[in-house]
Formats: sequence, structure tokens, C-alpha cells
Amino acid sequence: MGNELKERLDGGDYCLNGWLAIPSGFSAEVMAQCGWQSVTVDLQHGVQDYHSLVSCFQSMGAHPVTPLVRVPWNEPGIIGKVLDAGAWGVICPMINTPEDAAAFASACLYPPHGKRSNGPIRAAAYGEASAYQTIANAEILVLPMIETRQAVENIDAILDTPGISGIYVGPGDLAFSLGKLPALDREEDEFLAIYESLIQKTRKRGKVAGIHTGTAAYSARMIKMGFNFISIANDSGLMARAARDVIRETHEVVKSLSSSNKE
Amino acid sequence: MGNELKERLDGGDYCLNGWLAIPSGFSAEVMAQCGWQSVTVDLQHGVQDYHSLVSCFQSMGAHPVTPLVRVPWNEPGIIGKVLDAGAWGVICPMINTPEDAAAFASACLYPPHGKRSNGPIRAAAYGEASAYQTIANAEILVLPMIETRQAVENIDAILDTPGISGIYVGPGDLAFSLGKLPALDREEDEFLAIYESLIQKTRKRGKVAGIHTGTAAYSARMIKMGFNFISIANDSGLMARAARDVIRETHEVVKSLSSSNKE
Amino acid sequence: MGNELKERLDGGDYCLNGWLAIPSGFSAEVMAQCGWQSVTVDLQHGVQDYHSLVSCFQSMGAHPVTPLVRVPWNEPGIIGKVLDAGAWGVICPMINTPEDAAAFASACLYPPHGKRSNGPIRAAAYGEASAYQTIANAEILVLPMIETRQAVENIDAILDTPGISGIYVGPGDLAFSLGKLPALDREEDEFLAIYESLIQKTRKRGKVAGIHTGTAAYSARMIKMGFNFISIANDSGLMARAARDVIRETHEVVKSLSSSNKE
Amino acid sequence: MGNELKERLDGGDYCLNGWLAIPSGFSAEVMAQCGWQSVTVDLQHGVQDYHSLVSCFQSMGAHPVTPLVRVPWNEPGIIGKVLDAGAWGVICPMINTPEDAAAFASACLYPPHGKRSNGPIRAAAYGEASAYQTIANAEILVLPMIETRQAVENIDAILDTPGISGIYVGPGDLAFSLGKLPALDREEDEFLAIYESLIQKTRKRGKVAGIHTGTAAYSARMIKMGFNFISIANDSGLMARAARDVIRETHEVVKSLSSSNKE
Amino acid sequence: MGNELKERLDGGDYCLNGWLAIPSGFSAEVMAQCGWQSVTVDLQHGVQDYHSLVSCFQSMGAHPVTPLVRVPWNEPGIIGKVLDAGAWGVICPMINTPEDAAAFASACLYPPHGKRSNGPIRAAAYGEASAYQTIANAEILVLPMIETRQAVENIDAILDTPGISGIYVGPGDLAFSLGKLPALDREEDEFLAIYESLIQKTRKRGKVAGIHTGTAAYSARMIKMGFNFISIANDSGLMARAARDVIRETHEVVKSLSSSNKE
Amino acid sequence: MGNELKERLDGGDYCLNGWLAIPSGFSAEVMAQCGWQSVTVDLQHGVQDYHSLVSCFQSMGAHPVTPLVRVPWNEPGIIGKVLDAGAWGVICPMINTPEDAAAFASACLYPPHGKRSNGPIRAAAYGEASAYQTIANAEILVLPMIETRQAVENIDAILDTPGISGIYVGPGDLAFSLGKLPALDREEDEFLAIYESLIQKTRKRGKVAGIHTGTAAYSARMIKMGFNFISIANDSGLMARAARDVIRETHEVVKSLSSSNKE
Repeated sequence: MGNELKERLDGGDYCLNGWLAIPSGFSAEVMAQCGWQSVTVDLQHGVQDYHSLVSCFQSMGAHPVTPLVRVPWNEPGIIGKVLDAGAWGVICPMINTPEDAAAFASACLYPPHGKRSNGPIRAAAYGEASAYQTIANAEILVLPMIETRQAVENIDAILDTPGISGIYVGPGDLAFSLGKLPALDREEDEFLAIYESLIQKTRKRGKVAGIHTGTAAYSARMIKMGFNFISIANDSGLMARAARDVIRETHEVVKSLSSSNKE
Repeated sequence: MGNELKERLDGGDYCLNGWLAIPSGFSAEVMAQCGWQSVTVDLQHGVQDYHSLVSCFQSMGAHPVTPLVRVPWNEPGIIGKVLDAGAWGVICPMINTPEDAAAFASACLYPPHGKRSNGPIRAAAYGEASAYQTIANAEILVLPMIETRQAVENIDAILDTPGISGIYVGPGDLAFSLGKLPALDREEDEFLAIYESLIQKTRKRGKVAGIHTGTAAYSARMIKMGFNFISIANDSGLMARAARDVIRETHEVVKSLSSSNKE
Repeated sequence: MGNELKERLDGGDYCLNGWLAIPSGFSAEVMAQCGWQSVTVDLQHGVQDYHSLVSCFQSMGAHPVTPLVRVPWNEPGIIGKVLDAGAWGVICPMINTPEDAAAFASACLYPPHGKRSNGPIRAAAYGEASAYQTIANAEILVLPMIETRQAVENIDAILDTPGISGIYVGPGDLAFSLGKLPALDREEDEFLAIYESLIQKTRKRGKVAGIHTGTAAYSARMIKMGFNFISIANDSGLMARAARDVIRETHEVVKSLSSSNKE
Repeated sequence: MGNELKERLDGGDYCLNGWLAIPSGFSAEVMAQCGWQSVTVDLQHGVQDYHSLVSCFQSMGAHPVTPLVRVPWNEPGIIGKVLDAGAWGVICPMINTPEDAAAFASACLYPPHGKRSNGPIRAAAYGEASAYQTIANAEILVLPMIETRQAVENIDAILDTPGISGIYVGPGDLAFSLGKLPALDREEDEFLAIYESLIQKTRKRGKVAGIHTGTAAYSARMIKMGFNFISIANDSGLMARAARDVIRETHEVVKSLSSSNKE
Repeated sequence: MGNELKERLDGGDYCLNGWLAIPSGFSAEVMAQCGWQSVTVDLQHGVQDYHSLVSCFQSMGAHPVTPLVRVPWNEPGIIGKVLDAGAWGVICPMINTPEDAAAFASACLYPPHGKRSNGPIRAAAYGEASAYQTIANAEILVLPMIETRQAVENIDAILDTPGISGIYVGPGDLAFSLGKLPALDREEDEFLAIYESLIQKTRKRGKVAGIHTGTAAYSARMIKMGFNFISIANDSGLMARAARDVIRETHEVVKSLSSSNKE
Repeated sequence: MGNELKERLDGGDYCLNGWLAIPSGFSAEVMAQCGWQSVTVDLQHGVQDYHSLVSCFQSMGAHPVTPLVRVPWNEPGIIGKVLDAGAWGVICPMINTPEDAAAFASACLYPPHGKRSNGPIRAAAYGEASAYQTIANAEILVLPMIETRQAVENIDAILDTPGISGIYVGPGDLAFSLGKLPALDREEDEFLAIYESLIQKTRKRGKVAGIHTGTAAYSARMIKMGFNFISIANDSGLMARAARDVIRETHEVVKSLSSSNKE
């Protein structure tokens, strides 16, 4: 029992994280067999809610991935429910101040470090009576999203808030906050400088530096830059990309075969 | 109102067909926006049943794809239900004899050409009162799967069964029937000869020649060979392939960046 | 415990039956409070399957209506499941011969009168251990649909098949069978003569004569003609009719107010 | 792409709005074909949650209605989720002060006008990359419910809060606030005077004046009074009304036929 | 119409309460037939959300149990929704101060005693138009959880908060708050002294004293101590206990039969 | 990869089998942790269908139990679907003749031993490409229910049908067939003599002898008699039994404490 993702990250590995927007246990178990070290159910922007999360977690249980969640908002009700459902890590959007971070950590941790309520109905299946409650505070990853200029400015205070395990950078909202249209895989110096600074401050504290990317190439660059927890696109996006590719390629090959036939 | 896929095929186009195994309206609507001309909900080997089919059809309704179904078996109860739900075509497994084909067609067609029962609860939303019932027999594609040696031997009688619109080749079960392990995209002469023969007999009758493939390259070859209705992989397979690709590529680029760094 | 609908019909009352196409326990419980004596979940042409039927039955349980089902087809698997779920009556489509009727009755009745398998998981909640099994054969209504010319011709043999409780006329499919487009509330002499004959043969045997109608006026005529079990439209049809009426009336009153304002 | 309801309202039309309490994509798509200009999924008092909303929206997508939502409460988590799901307008209960209104608007709008987080997973299907994000702030209707005496008193400040598109009057809670039992279609002068005042203040600002009614006649009066966005009853209420009507009428006609028979 | 649980408690009876963690209408209706006076759907630590609650309530409707809910958190949105769904009582976690208690009561009660919004879509099915709204404030049980040292210290102020019907003790979180690992059925003097004090203060005000226990023996002791509302374990816990018992006993009897055979 | 239940049975162990009637992945995963060697989802008399089966299988995947199914009827469509979903064994009701047995086995086995269609969408996740198809015929347990006098008379022919792995005795339907009311745990000599005979004929062929029981004591007797595959009650039955016990015991202890107090 324990958080295998945390163990890997603590051991110095970088980890690749799958991202679930499709509310289906079946697509979740397919994703769980692809090679990700962890898989996150996205309750904020994914087409997910509590019950689809439970289905996804149940389906992932037989596969070697650590289950994580992005919650829709910094609200203790839903944070408690996803932890009870078995999440070993919580990503929370829009943590902009140390106060936000403290409230988030408090919702994730049992007393005396927080105010999480006891009742780990699926999570405790991982161990003996009270075994889960004994280790939960040490094992659960508490990952605030850094996705506004305000959060970037408050990064030291956020990282020093007790209970915070690291950061997760959201490039889309960070773009909005910097006056640009949202998109992943930013090339602007302004973004890269922020990333460098965030990585430096996070890693020197021995904490997790996470980011959401869109492609393998950009992911690799971010890993070289120092991020150690990388999500790439999501389930529905990967599916759509593959479908469009195979359709386009079929049409192209048909055309090329037709041309060569004519010659 | 009408069957746009049939119109395209009748007009001489080849059509690419998406295949849904994930029981989710959301993944269905994503697939419906990728460029397929039709999308088939697979009730036989997909993780689908009647209600997930309805969700998929509802979600595809706003997008330019013709809804089709593969039924689990040649049973009139489920065939009636999927047609009432709005399918413009039915693919039925294991049609091996003209008797199988006649029973299948009867389940798909209203009297006097068949015994389908009246009650097109979603399908009739496509038109005025009784408008659907007036055109349904002419518009619905009735596609038996040709996937055993027996079916290949009976192909003339199957194609000449009233109501049959064409064929859909299942390479996996055909392989089993020929004493081989199942797989798509066969290269053996035995298979290609069968395909040639099936295409020749089907297309000379002006009917639909369909097949399931795994890749763009093989699809293009089949189109050049004469198939005009091609399914490529399925939703979960495309997703898994894309996920594995992006994970492998990330690791490769990280490694290559590491090596080049060292130099 | 027992079948209140049967008791009413046996007592000489006519009964009005609600019809559920919407797969929702909530709409089912709303319908169950409107004044119907029974409510039928339509698994054939409704947007229903086994699990939505269970939800509808659970929701209707607190209200004074007898739960019935129309099954999708004359198949023992689903007939057994809907009875186990608590149906006190089964309406089965396309019973055209005494052989069809005998197979249908056999699927509905416990030995020695039929081959229904023991396991009334929700139905037995109605009584003590084995109490349900003791009364089920006597209480369950077995209602074949008479909806083809062949069925009309075989009506005596169908009605005399042991276990058959009466008939349920399907005007839409009967129309198809007579070479016309399907619709409810037929005015043609050909239909009315068939109805008269079916009623006469059914009622002289003391059995249930049921029919599906579209309006109150036609229902009343059918009751006067001798039908004693009448379904009127369905949940979604009533909803759509009411919505269209209220929209049309609003626009009309707005126009009339505008005109009178101008005067 | 864009908000067709807003376009109609901006053009001076009044619009009729359907209201969904039944958590079913099927009843939603039936309602979407009845003639409403928009259809609202009611997450507050309807039997709805996030996933049933998604089903309703998916089913409405093929039909000419603008999708709206009433959220359960003024909470940014759920407001973000329903907008990502594709709502072109949000109705929020119990907006009583300009502070409430500002928080509500902030949750609905992207930076710099609000704090909505980027990730329009279904909404962005309406357009090109970032196209949705470019127009969303201008197109989304932000409609606070005015349903307490306090809100009526604060109406100028609420209407002048940046981002607010108009109002939606809730007669039931307004009644409670005025010390009466809740009901729609109020005839008391106290209510009508409030309505007049709200309309006057709203329309002079060129904003949307909405109200919930129970009947066509009252709706027409409200339209003549100046409301331009009118919801009439809801799906389950219309269904129940129609079912009760058809049952009562059947019994009445049967009785009248019986009496006339006796004469 | 009315709250039968409240009537029993007011009459001096103690009541046993079933607890639902399994999100299934079927397990709910089984539990509802076992002899509990009330059954609570646990939205906090159970695998439940709003829609599974509705299913459970619909299934319990035919059986003699009063439906209650434990909400996930003290948030007016979800409290309103569960009351509209038909709950006759709400248990709310982590009520530690009179301010918490006042906010909780306000969310449960209609004006003028609270700010609950009108729209009892399932609850009003219990009575005539406005009948529910007339009695709801008097009938609904508002039960704060007392589960921290702070709450124990504030017990007088919490109990004297207008609208509060009593208390519900949560031994697990209380243990955390007292620096111990969570478990039910505490034997430590520290706990028993707190329980005695809570009972004394609650019962002298004529209010409900509730607690969650794990076994029949401990429940009986708590009843003798003065608690009058007792939950015992939950549905999944009882099932697991019974399954483990029957497996262990089978193995034991097989072994004992084997030994006796050998002799 | 492979069928662990079959391995245990082949090794001479008796196995205890859990039985799932509750359509919930959560109750399934709780049952999967109780000590059963296999767990069967009951699609015949349980409140289960294909999709609830998939949820149960997904949830059981992380736990050491072999997934089995009882299908509703001897129909190839549903048998194919449950095997594709990952069942390692199928129990089929009402196999009364060698023809029934041959049809059942044919639906369970790939060519050349049967007509199962290729497409093991969840099952193949257990291994490499085509690995599953290579072993499936050898690993899948094909278990006909022996539950009529006719089946008992045909037992030799049924057991000798190629592909049949053993038997599963259904005492309830067997009782009906013998002219008695259904119940488990029969004590009549007529039953015990049949059981002895069935065991003798089954075990001499080295096949599985299964039976459904209600209690630990009877299970142990059946194991001593020679059955090696024993289901005990089901999930909802165990839950109800435990709930009734704990309620009765609480009332009894309260009464006994009251009496002793009075003395």
C-alpha cells in the first residue's frame, strides 16, 4: 500500500500522466494499460463527475497506474469525496494565494494537519483497519494549479504552505491571465521564463513540478527543463488526433495510388 | 431526411466509417467530428448496449455522420430496437446462408418486404408523420457480415436475397473459419483472393462492399481493390495507439536530448 | 399482494393504462400519480431497456398503479427478467399463431403450466417466502398483441391457448399488415369490423380486450365498443402535445392581445 | 457559431423557453422539437445533475434550440462546468445583492472580465481553436434570478453590475419573501407592481427580462407587459397535465356516451 | 403526509436507522424492507451522489422507512437538492460552531426561518399544492454532526440555534479530533463522558440524540445511555461481514466434518 | 493469464463462489474482497444486465477472484458479449438435453470447437495479441445448469457433450420440476439422491460439480458429499440477513438490559 507515483517522483524519475475527460470506465482501463505512471480523472473541464470518477478508478484498479483527480474547485466537499474514492493525489485549480493553498491542504489532510473527515470507503480497501488513515497524510500528493500571474507572484508562499506537495502549471489559464488566448505548448519567452522560475523554486524544495502539455516533443523539452510530472493531452484529444490522422492518411494514399495508376 | 451514407455510396464515393466501442455519448460526439462519413455503434464486440447506443446516436445527431449499428446477433428484437433508435444501417454478424440473410432482411424491413414492427420513436423524428415509414425500406442499409468459409461459398445466394444491400467482411472471424488466428489487414493470398471474389460479385450487383481494417495504408489498398465502405480500427484502439505513441516518443526524445546534452 | 389491475378488470371495470417511453424513474413516478390504473414500460418501441424498466418500477412502487411491460420480442430470456423485476402483466408483440401464443405463455408461467425459471428477485418482495410463486400463475396477465391479419385469422386458437389472459390490439402494425401506413385511432370500416370481432371473441371468453389509442375521444368509443383495457398515447407524446399546445396558444394570445390593443 | 437566443432577443423578439426537470436525453430531444427558442436544464429544482445535463445538451444539439442551464447555487465550480458543457446562458438563483451579481458574472466570464477557467470541452466544439474563447464573453447570457424583496430593492445595482445580461424572475421564492405561499402566475397587485418596475428598469437598459409562468394565457399577459424571455411550466408538469386531462376526458366521454345510450 | 420518524421520536421511541453507501436503488429497497425506521443515503463518505440518492429514495418509497440524507458538506446547493428530492431529515458533517449551525438550518428551512428555495419536485408529491411547503419547516429534522472537540465545547450554542432538531455524533472524526485513530464503538472513558454530556444536554431540550455504531451490542448500550436515534454500520459493511462469516463458517464446518470423518 | 478458478478446481480444491444481484461496481468490489475464489454476476435472476456486469467485472479486476457470469438464457448473442467482457466461466440456465448443451458449448468456444465470434474487447486485455484466443477454449468453464427432471435423466449425454466443463445444480427450478415449491438447501431424500447421482457421474469424468446453497452448514455438507463449486446465497441476501440480525439483536439486548435494570 502507498502512493507509487510519489515513490517514483521521490526516487528522481519523471512521470507521465494520462488525463481522462471521457466519463467511461472502459476508456479509463484502456488508458491505464498504455504506459502512463499515473492517470488523472478531470472533474473540472473533463466530462466527469463523482460517479464517473468512481467508475474510472474501479477500472484502473487492476493496472499499474496511480489514480489522481483534478477537482472542479477548491471546495472541501468534493475534495473529501475524491480522496475517499481512492485518489492518491489531488490537483486543484486556481490556487492563487497562500490562503487558497492552506484551505486546499486542509481539505486533503486528516487532523491534526487538516480537516479531512474520516470515511475512506474505497481508499481504505488498500490496507488494514486504520492503516490507510495512518499513512494518508504522508502519501497523498497535494498539487495546487499555478495558472495566474497572482499565483506566480505568490509562488514562494504557496510552496511553503504546510501540506503542499508541489505545483501543477496550467498554461491555458496562465495565458488568459497574461492577456493572451489560451493554448498549450507555449513558445513565448514570457512563459518560458515563468516556467524556469517555477521549476527552480519548486525543485529546490524537493517538490513536484508538474505541467500540462500537448505533444511528445514539448513534453520532452519540459522534462529537460526540470518538470518531473507531465500530462500529455487527454483521452478524447488523443483519440480525435488519431482518427483525423488515419482518415487523412487514407485519403492521401488513395490519391497517390490513383495518380501512380494513371501513369 | 434520408440516408446520406447511402446517397454517397450510390453516387460512387468510397466512405470511411468510424467504429464505437466506448459506451459514452461524449466520445461518440468527438468521433463524429473527425471526418468519418458514418459512425457505427458496435453492440457485438464493443462495450455497448441499447442505452449506450441511444446516447451515442443522440450525441452524433448534430454532426454530419450517418448513424449505423452492428447488432450482437441475428435477433429481431434488438434489430427492431436499433432501427427505432435511428440507425440508417445495420451490420449483422455471422450471416452464412441465404436463410440467415432472409431472416436478417425481414427484421430490418417493414411489411410487405419484412416483419419489422412499427414504432420508430427516434427515427421518425427525422421527418413528418409516416414520412419515415414511407422511405425506410428504401433507405436502410442491410449489411450482412461475410466472415466464414460457408458465407463465402454462399455469397451469390446471400447477395441475391431480397433486401440485402451489400456485404461487410469480418477478417477476424474469417481467419478463424480458415483455421488461422484472428487479425486484421491480412496479407495471405487466400484472403486476398476471397476479397477479390467478394468485391467482384458485390459490385457487379451495384451493392455495398464493406470491410474492417486496422490502418490507413491497408484501407487505401482495399479501396483501390474495390471496397467502398471501410471501417478503420475503433475509438478505443485509436486512443490507445495514440497514447502509446506519445509516451514512447516522449521517452525517446528525452533520451536523445540527454545524449546530445552529454556530447 | 396480487394484481390489482386483474382484480379491477375481473370486476367489470374498464382500466386506463399509461405508457412509458422515457427511460427515467422520475417521469415514471410522475405518470404513476396521474390516475392510470396500470402503467406499462415499453421495452419494444420505447427508449427503454431492462435497467430503465427496473428504475421505472421502483419509482412506481409507492403509487396505486399496477406495473406492466411490453417486451421487445417473444424471447424467454427477457420475459423472465421483466417478471422477476415485478411485472404483473406482459404484453408481447407479434403473436400470430397458437404456437407463438403457447411459447409466450410458457415463458410467463411457472411449472407445470410453463417453463419460467424461479428467482423473482423484486417480484417476491410483494409477499412471504414462496407466497409469490404460489399465486404468480393465477395473477399474471399474459397479453399477446394482435397486430397482423394472420393473428386476426388465428384469434380463436390464440385465445384458447392455455395461459393466455386476453389480447392487446396494435393498430399500427395491423395497418401495415392490411397494406396501409401505420397510425392510431383508425376510422376505416375494415379496422372497426376487426375490432368488433376481436372484442366479441375475447369478451365471450371472459378475457381482457386491450387496445392502444391516441386520444380521449377515441378511447371512449373503444370502451363503449367493448374494449376494457385502453392505453392512451405515451409519456413523451403527451408531453410534446402539451408543449406544442402551450407554445401555440401563447403566440395566439399574444397576437390577439396585439390586435385588440391596436383597435 | 454564437448564441441564437441572444440574437433573437437583441432583435426584439420575445422567446419561449422550455424547462427540463426530467433527467433524460430522450425527453430533452422531444422537448427540443416542440417550438421553444431555448431549453433550460434545471439543476436547482429539477431532477438533474451535471451528467444528466450533458445528456440533455447532447440530445438537443441536432435541434434549433439554444441550450441554457439553471445552476443549483452561486458556486463557481458548477457554473464553470455547465458553461464548458455548452450552455449559452446561465440562470442563477438567489442573486440578492450587487456582490452576489458580481460573483456570478465573474464565474461566467473569461479574464479579464471574470475568473472562468479555460477548458470548454463541449462548448468549443462549436468553433475553431480559440474561436469560442474569443466570443464567449460577448455571447453568454448571465441571468440572475430576482426572487426576494432584497433583490427587488437592489435591482438597479444588480442590473448595473458589469457582465449581467438581464434578470429572471422567480415568482415562487418571491412569494415566500413577501410572506405568501409559493405559486406561479400571481394576480396580486403587489406582484404585478414589482413586475412592472423590474421590466421598466431592465428594458430601459436594453437587457433581458425573463420570468417563469405556468400557462399560455399568463405568459401572453407577461409578454404584453414587457417580459421578453418566458418559461412555461416544465417537461414533467406538461406531461402530467396532459395525462390527467386525457384520463379525465376519457371518463367524461364514456359517461356521456353511457347517458346518451340510456336515453 | 409528514415525517414518521419524527413522530416516533417525539413519541418517545428509539429508532434504528439504516445507512446506504451502495449507489443502487435495488440495495436501497432491500435495506428498506429489513426493519429500520429510517434509512439514510450517505452523500459524504458513501459511494453516492445526487442521482443515486434519487434512485434510492424512489426505491424506498413503497416501504415503511423515512428517507434521510447525510450531505457531503454544509453547502446550500446540495442541501436544497436533497430536500427537494424528498428527504425528511438532513445530517450535516462538521458543524462546530453556532454559526455553522445557523447556516445549516437556514439552508434547510423555508422563509421566514431560513433561505431554502421553493421547488420540492419530489417532496411535494407527498401532498396537495403548497401542503408540503406549509408543513416542511415543522417536519424536517435538521441534525448537525457533533464530531470535533470544538463542537462538543459549543454544544449548548449549537443546540440553541433556531431550527436545530438535535445532534448526530460521529465517533470517527471525534476520535481524530481527540488525537486518536478513528473507529466506531469507543470504550474509552473520554468518549463515554462526552456522550453522557451530549445526551444530557440534548434530551433535556427534548431533541434528538443520534449516534453511529458498529454492532447490535454497542447500539443497545447507547440506547440505554439515552441515545434515541442509532445507525448501525452500513449496507456494504453488513454485506461484507455476512459474506466473510459464511465463508469462514463453511471452511470450519468442512474441516470439522473432515476430522470427525477421520475418527 | 488464465483461469485461476479452473486451476484450483483442477488441483482438487473446493471453491466458494460469490453471487452478485446488486447492479453496482461498488458492491461487487466489496464482495470481491471477502474471500470467495470466484464471483458470478447473475444476469438471469439478479438485477443485472450487460453494462452492470461490465462495471462489476471492472471493479473486481484488482482483487483475487475469477469473474463468472450466469446468462439469462441459452442465446449466443449475450453469451458472446459476456465472454468478450472477460468472463472465465459461463453458467447457463435450463440445459435439459444434449442439444441444449451442444448449442451452449458452441456459443462459448472459438472455432473449430464452436462458433464464438472473435472480439474479446476486455478479455484480451489479459494477454498479448491473440494470446487470449489461443487459450480461451481450454480455459473457459462451460457450466450448464441441471435444474429439471429432464436434465437429470439426460445427465450422461449432457456431460459427454464436447466442451462441457461440468454442471451447476439449481435447487429452486429442480423443485418446481419435481412438483414442489422452490427453495434452497433441500433435505428431501429425492433431492439428495439426485445430488449423489449427479456428483458421481460428474466427478468420475473429472468435471466440476457445482450447486447453489443458502447457508454455511448446508454448503459444508454439499462439499463433503462431493460438490466442489459452491455458491452461497447472494450479495443482497447476505446484506438483508445481516441487517435483520443486527436489528433483532439490538432490540433483544435493549429489552434484556431493561429487564435487568428493573430487577
